[in-house]
Amino acid sequence: MELTGPITLTDHRYGKAENRVVRIRRETARHEIRDVNVSTVLRGDFADAYAGDQRKVLPTDTQKQTAFAYAKQPGLQTIEDYGLALAGHFVDDIEPVSSARIEIDEYAWQRVTVDGREHEHTWVRQGPEVRTAAITVAGTGADRQAWVIGGVKDLTILKSTGSEFADFLSDEFTVLAPTHDRMLATTLVVAWRFAGTTGIAWDDVYAGIRARLVETFATHHSKALQQTLFEMGKAALQAYPVLAEIRLAAPNKHHFDYDLARFGIENNGEVYYAADRPYGLIHATLQRADAPEAGPAWLP
Amino acid sequence: MELTGPITLTDHRYGKAENRVVRIRRETARHEIRDVNVSTVLRGDFADAYAGDQRKVLPTDTQKQTAFAYAKQPGLQTIEDYGLALAGHFVDDIEPVSSARIEIDEYAWQRVTVDGREHEHTWVRQGPEVRTAAITVAGTGADRQAWVIGGVKDLTILKSTGSEFADFLSDEFTVLAPTHDRMLATTLVVAWRFAGTTGIAWDDVYAGIRARLVETFATHHSKALQQTLFEMGKAALQAYPVLAEIRLAAPNKHHFDYDLARFGIENNGEVYYAADRPYGLIHATLQRADAPEAGPAWLP
Amino acid sequence: MELTGPITLTDHRYGKAENRVVRIRRETARHEIRDVNVSTVLRGDFADAYAGDQRKVLPTDTQKQTAFAYAKQPGLQTIEDYGLALAGHFVDDIEPVSSARIEIDEYAWQRVTVDGREHEHTWVRQGPEVRTAAITVAGTGADRQAWVIGGVKDLTILKSTGSEFADFLSDEFTVLAPTHDRMLATTLVVAWRFAGTTGIAWDDVYAGIRARLVETFATHHSKALQQTLFEMGKAALQAYPVLAEIRLAAPNKHHFDYDLARFGIENNGEVYYAADRPYGLIHATLQRADAPEAGPAWLP
Amino acid sequence: MELTGPITLTDHRYGKAENRVVRIRRETARHEIRDVNVSTVLRGDFADAYAGDQRKVLPTDTQKQTAFAYAKQPGLQTIEDYGLALAGHFVDDIEPVSSARIEIDEYAWQRVTVDGREHEHTWVRQGPEVRTAAITVAGTGADRQAWVIGGVKDLTILKSTGSEFADFLSDEFTVLAPTHDRMLATTLVVAWRFAGTTGIAWDDVYAGIRARLVETFATHHSKALQQTLFEMGKAALQAYPVLAEIRLAAPNKHHFDYDLARFGIENNGEVYYAADRPYGLIHATLQRADAPEAGPAWLP
Repeated sequence: MELTGPITLTDHRYGKAENRVVRIRRETARHEIRDVNVSTVLRGDFADAYAGDQRKVLPTDTQKQTAFAYAKQPGLQTIEDYGLALAGHFVDDIEPVSSARIEIDEYAWQRVTVDGREHEHTWVRQGPEVRTAAITVAGTGADRQAWVIGGVKDLTILKSTGSEFADFLSDEFTVLAPTHDRMLATTLVVAWRFAGTTGIAWDDVYAGIRARLVETFATHHSKALQQTLFEMGKAALQAYPVLAEIRLAAPNKHHFDYDLARFGIENNGEVYYAADRPYGLIHATLQRADAPEAGPAWLP
Repeated sequence: MELTGPITLTDHRYGKAENRVVRIRRETARHEIRDVNVSTVLRGDFADAYAGDQRKVLPTDTQKQTAFAYAKQPGLQTIEDYGLALAGHFVDDIEPVSSARIEIDEYAWQRVTVDGREHEHTWVRQGPEVRTAAITVAGTGADRQAWVIGGVKDLTILKSTGSEFADFLSDEFTVLAPTHDRMLATTLVVAWRFAGTTGIAWDDVYAGIRARLVETFATHHSKALQQTLFEMGKAALQAYPVLAEIRLAAPNKHHFDYDLARFGIENNGEVYYAADRPYGLIHATLQRADAPEAGPAWLP
Repeated sequence: MELTGPITLTDHRYGKAENRVVRIRRETARHEIRDVNVSTVLRGDFADAYAGDQRKVLPTDTQKQTAFAYAKQPGLQTIEDYGLALAGHFVDDIEPVSSARIEIDEYAWQRVTVDGREHEHTWVRQGPEVRTAAITVAGTGADRQAWVIGGVKDLTILKSTGSEFADFLSDEFTVLAPTHDRMLATTLVVAWRFAGTTGIAWDDVYAGIRARLVETFATHHSKALQQTLFEMGKAALQAYPVLAEIRLAAPNKHHFDYDLARFGIENNGEVYYAADRPYGLIHATLQRADAPEAGPAWLP
Repeated sequence: MELTGPITLTDHRYGKAENRVVRIRRETARHEIRDVNVSTVLRGDFADAYAGDQRKVLPTDTQKQTAFAYAKQPGLQTIEDYGLALAGHFVDDIEPVSSARIEIDEYAWQRVTVDGREHEHTWVRQGPEVRTAAITVAGTGADRQAWVIGGVKDLTILKSTGSEFADFLSDEFTVLAPTHDRMLATTLVVAWRFAGTTGIAWDDVYAGIRARLVETFATHHSKALQQTLFEMGKAALQAYPVLAEIRLAAPNKHHFDYDLARFGIENNGEVYYAADRPYGLIHATLQRADAPEAGPAWLP
């Protein structure tokens, strides 16, 4: 099948990716830290640039300067509010911009304890989990719309029992043995869409959703990772009516019982080989029936 | 804004990711190698699994076995045909599957030269660039549809002159100086959608598109990375009428002129600092007006 | 300068690297986890292998099997004792082995809290810091010697004040401005050599050394990263007389004050750019005067 | 065993790591590129810094400026000569420096071909292999000494036949089956020490050694990776009398025959699973009997 139609630019966007901004608040001796990786993405009237005319193009360098400047004023406290301010600026103040998206990773730091007390200006990095946000703002004036997605990634969790996988479909390539007691481990990537963008205690909601996800993983007896993901997502949505939707992606990080019987050694779920690749990969999206439209919220 | 509606599973998929398959053809003393990383993704009647019932779930372990088995029969020659066969199998032979997607990275190996001749069974890995494919098959019988996306990623290219960036939009955060001679470097991620799925010389088309992209980058005088991307995409579509669409993503890997004037040393585009982060990130999509519908071709 | 002497094998070693062993203790409902990456390295009478004769070569596959078997019996509790047992086995039981080295990374898992109580079989990964050990055993019978090195890597720590860098040497390429208040951040790699190998509460010593390192970083006013490292090492050695030596490597992860004055915005140590590369890299070794010989302890 | 002796600084060094320097020669329309990652390491009279006195400390920032300045003058042509000049400068011109080490990675770029001709100012990155060098200079005047180590890393090579592993030592944990035809793959890290530092055609020697290594891997029938490594090292030393010593490290990147017999499918070395971890890891050092002393050449 060969085509002959004219070739046109049908989609485009651009921005500055991975601005590594660290913000210290030092109004008092007890400093506060926010450590983020910010990417800006602009959509709008930029097609001329693809023909060599930059007159409507705000340089990505300028977007970088703006991301750093906005970390001071209005300031970088929660990543959701910072992202809303930054995206709003691009849409409001830069004429060709029709919509702006700000994607942020936030790295956690834990205060150091000295003599049983939290230190005022020293922290140790916590991980591997990373808090995420993706804020989209489109339109000005009466047409203004905004969407906030919060999330967590690289949240690695493991349970050593309370997980099964059995009674599955079989075909001629099926050799897997069913099991009623296996190790279950995953590195979660979860993102949740808020129904609105104001009046939300972003930090509290983040901590609460993370707690719901982790608790549910721990306490829910798993028939499969699919079921566990659904229950985790449901627990988060139920706990937070400010959420419209939640998307979970979970690699099944296989831990294989190591065959020690060959050496006359019993191994009842005690020694495992943690495999790298391949891995199962499960996706689930849950939504409330009365969720507002997602619009461009999930567009990268 | 708080929601109260019932919570339901609105989307889901699952599969086995990153099966590292190496296929050697050894019918003659001159062996051939194909080295791939294959991921399978199934969509269909799998909602029950999220409620704890696996009866319709083909294990991801079975998908792995199948990916390896299909590398022998029907065989792994081009990744596009291998992906079509594997995806077609899941849709045709596993009842709950409504659509299957196969994502493949292929690593290049170059034959070793010994005494001026190509060695028959030894290769050196070539990179960093990686050939990619994403094949989607949906429906059976008269409803069968298929889409093939080819691509290349991590194709890193640099030109030391023939690139400008000037006459851009300015605001109060703009400090960038315009330039009429800069280094331009990027690591391309490009994917192209074929209009059909049969009668295509996959390997030749891959080599040809890669050559068009690289040549255009080299010879096109650049007013901006946006313009260069557009010209590269256009050159590929023009050369290959079997293509319906092309998507290009390109980080602007900044190389900054190093300030040696402080030391009384002239630096006329001779010494650069290659920065890691942040980087500009430009996206462009080009399509032919008579392109068939993309359907789920771009769905991950 | 050209050489004509005969070519000989002057050094060699071999082993199995990166065995990913996870050990669960499940004698009671409250499970325990140890998650490690183990590498074995054997030295000895293996020169014949380099001439094509494997008769004295214990396969690396066998070393892997042994690493997994030893995780069950005698068991994997502390990585130091596990390493001593595994290394001792190779030296004692495999005739050509003259010395064995076991290198181990241990990944930390934190119990999940549910309803304010620690869960019995679910954990979340803690990081990025990783506990390390390198155990060397050589000789049998009266000639038996052993060395244990403990350590931590990827311990990322930051202080937002209490650090200076001034009064340094200058030459014609020196443009750095002195500062009396800067951010100081590093990702520590620290290794400590024990004076002996028995009667040591490995887990307690690890926790204690880590605490001394972190506390000293926090509370010591820094004239330079060099001084801070020295004080950290000294604090660890002073607190633990079981230590003979400590080696610290610390990248100076630069955080640059972002220039917002160009935009009329004041920035008093509030907004930083976290740079990737290059970075300062400082090394320090501290030792007690009565430390026993290191022997092959630091040989990789 | 507890120690009570005084604690002292017994070793130290510092420098600026990973300066990403790109050097373009543009004297004619046909540009030349050298793309390197340079680290500087200084040893000398720097102990005071660990007590908080920086008066003898040349800032790592200054070392960075110098690395960039020296890329212009005397210039960055071969990494060995550039490293010798830079190290020599630190030893000669910075009083407290007793020895300097420069470690360099060089990334390869291949000229783009357009219409069958090499383009003058556009290149594509070649990899994954990386050329390396480590240059050490110590002492001034009559005491001046210098050592040059060249090398290559991430050179990934594979042969699909011509490799065995059999007749090895067995113990109670040995389950590996001997084989007389297996796939052999590795990612080489090789470093070679030159007998002198002058009068050497660095680029030619690099290309020649790489060719000897690759050819020998291809043509030598392997009884084990150990034997192959020895033969590779010997071939390089024999071909280049300017070399005193060569060190090879090689992971045995296991490719396992995939068990398709379960599905009634024959697999005679045609379908492999490429495993990530664990991997065998083999080291070999070869030296000429008349090699000069290595001195600090291998000290990091």
